[in-house]
Amino acid sequence: MTERKTLADWKRALETYLEALPMEGAPDILRQAMRYSLLAGGKRLRGCLMLAACKMAGGNADAALPFAAAVEMIHAYSLIHDDLPAMDNDTLRRGKPTNHVVFGEAVAILAGDALLTHAFEIMAASPHPNALRALGEIARAAGVSGMLAGQTLDVTLAGTAPDTDLVRRIHEGKTAALLTAPLTAGLILAGAEENQIEAGRVYGYHLGIAFQIEDDLLDLAGDPALMGKTLGKDQAEGKLTWPACVGVSQAEKDAEEHIALAVKALDPFGEKADFLRDLAFSTLKRTQ
Amino acid sequence: MTERKTLADWKRALETYLEALPMEGAPDILRQAMRYSLLAGGKRLRGCLMLAACKMAGGNADAALPFAAAVEMIHAYSLIHDDLPAMDNDTLRRGKPTNHVVFGEAVAILAGDALLTHAFEIMAASPHPNALRALGEIARAAGVSGMLAGQTLDVTLAGTAPDTDLVRRIHEGKTAALLTAPLTAGLILAGAEENQIEAGRVYGYHLGIAFQIEDDLLDLAGDPALMGKTLGKDQAEGKLTWPACVGVSQAEKDAEEHIALAVKALDPFGEKADFLRDLAFSTLKRTQ
Repeated sequence: MTERKTLADWKRALETYLEALPMEGAPDILRQAMRYSLLAGGKRLRGCLMLAACKMAGGNADAALPFAAAVEMIHAYSLIHDDLPAMDNDTLRRGKPTNHVVFGEAVAILAGDALLTHAFEIMAASPHPNALRALGEIARAAGVSGMLAGQTLDVTLAGTAPDTDLVRRIHEGKTAALLTAPLTAGLILAGAEENQIEAGRVYGYHLGIAFQIEDDLLDLAGDPALMGKTLGKDQAEGKLTWPACVGVSQAEKDAEEHIALAVKALDPFGEKADFLRDLAFSTLKRTQ
Repeated sequence: MTERKTLADWKRALETYLEALPMEGAPDILRQAMRYSLLAGGKRLRGCLMLAACKMAGGNADAALPFAAAVEMIHAYSLIHDDLPAMDNDTLRRGKPTNHVVFGEAVAILAGDALLTHAFEIMAASPHPNALRALGEIARAAGVSGMLAGQTLDVTLAGTAPDTDLVRRIHEGKTAALLTAPLTAGLILAGAEENQIEAGRVYGYHLGIAFQIEDDLLDLAGDPALMGKTLGKDQAEGKLTWPACVGVSQAEKDAEEHIALAVKALDPFGEKADFLRDLAFSTLKRTQ
């Protein structure tokens, strides 16, 4: 791979890998359902972060591809299960019918299970000497203290009054965990020093929190009357979002603050981290 | 651990480990739902097989505990998702309400996802030098060519005419895969020779197939009119079982044949394999 990559370059490498992902022995319907959601587009932000972090620390990004693919598989599984009738009951995602609408609930549940399991199967097949540690970072991020903690709180506490501690825990789990693991895993695969791995963890955390606040603000942007205002309790009810807790203007300031902290964490990497810096700033630009 | 262990000894060690399993950071409701199904009893056959296989080859069974626990977590997750309304829609399991009846469908889906993910998190935390390879065996067994292949065929082809090739594929996936992985993983953790690992694979496969045929026969035993008879097409319809394919008498012979092959595979281990031999023979005794 050449020296300086754009997001589009990383995305292309990842798409090619995912398109050719072996699923030997899978029944046709299961393979189709897995591929339907896995190859449905999206920014591939998580996978690209891993490849960029690995490259930034002098690692071989090709060797990180199975791990980047695994993070995308875990993201895809979480969306399939999130969309199920018993969860968010969504029938459309990115303009296409959701997995259970096309394949039925039973196959959608199994396709989610299969993408999660296949992520670990693919990582375990890696000959990389740091494979187990990288796999462990990703398992923890997807697990009971990470993504699944966020999902559980979100699902079981929907409708309760917004509370900054609770919303922060949901954001840490649902968004920041699976944006942080690509950073730390990518650095681990590059054989980075421990202080670099921790710097990656700080960057990923603040990027993830800022990303989710921006997502919440984008949702509100659909309701221009609420922009720039502190939401009242009646408007906030049932919405476990950051703007619902602190108001729109404060949420905007908080997102900027988190991006500043994310960018600051990259200092030890010097100009090699320009890709990750640009990516962090571009998160803010989404609502500006 | 002392030299000769009974099934009850292995089961006790495993129950103690599972009871104390750390789930740091898990929301209370998620932890409760996971433990409800994980600690609901059962024979712990898969976990005990792993500990016994590891010990048989001279390994440290204590070091295999996280892997034995992982296989039990994967088994528990598969039962939670199997019981869901969109799947088998079962409201009782081992005489207790199923997970979704107690915790609701959303939390049951998440508890299944969490048990699967936690299995990998626990294994990845092992310092054992062969941890990644053992984890890979378990991931493959649970994956698209193993358990999830069997589940998918079972769910999507229920109601079609029984066919020996199809039923064999379902049994290989749903039952044999997750009985074979404990053998191979246990032997891998013991640092066994490749030919021993393959002998374990043969034993686990035939034990698994025999186990499932016996399960099918036990189900029929509820209908004494059918015992000892070759089922007609009308009785067999919609039941993807081995007796429905080949008749009861032939199914009984086939189970015995698979047990004989399983026991024969243990020859290289000599008398150290007596535990696994006894366990194989006891499988047959369930219907006799």
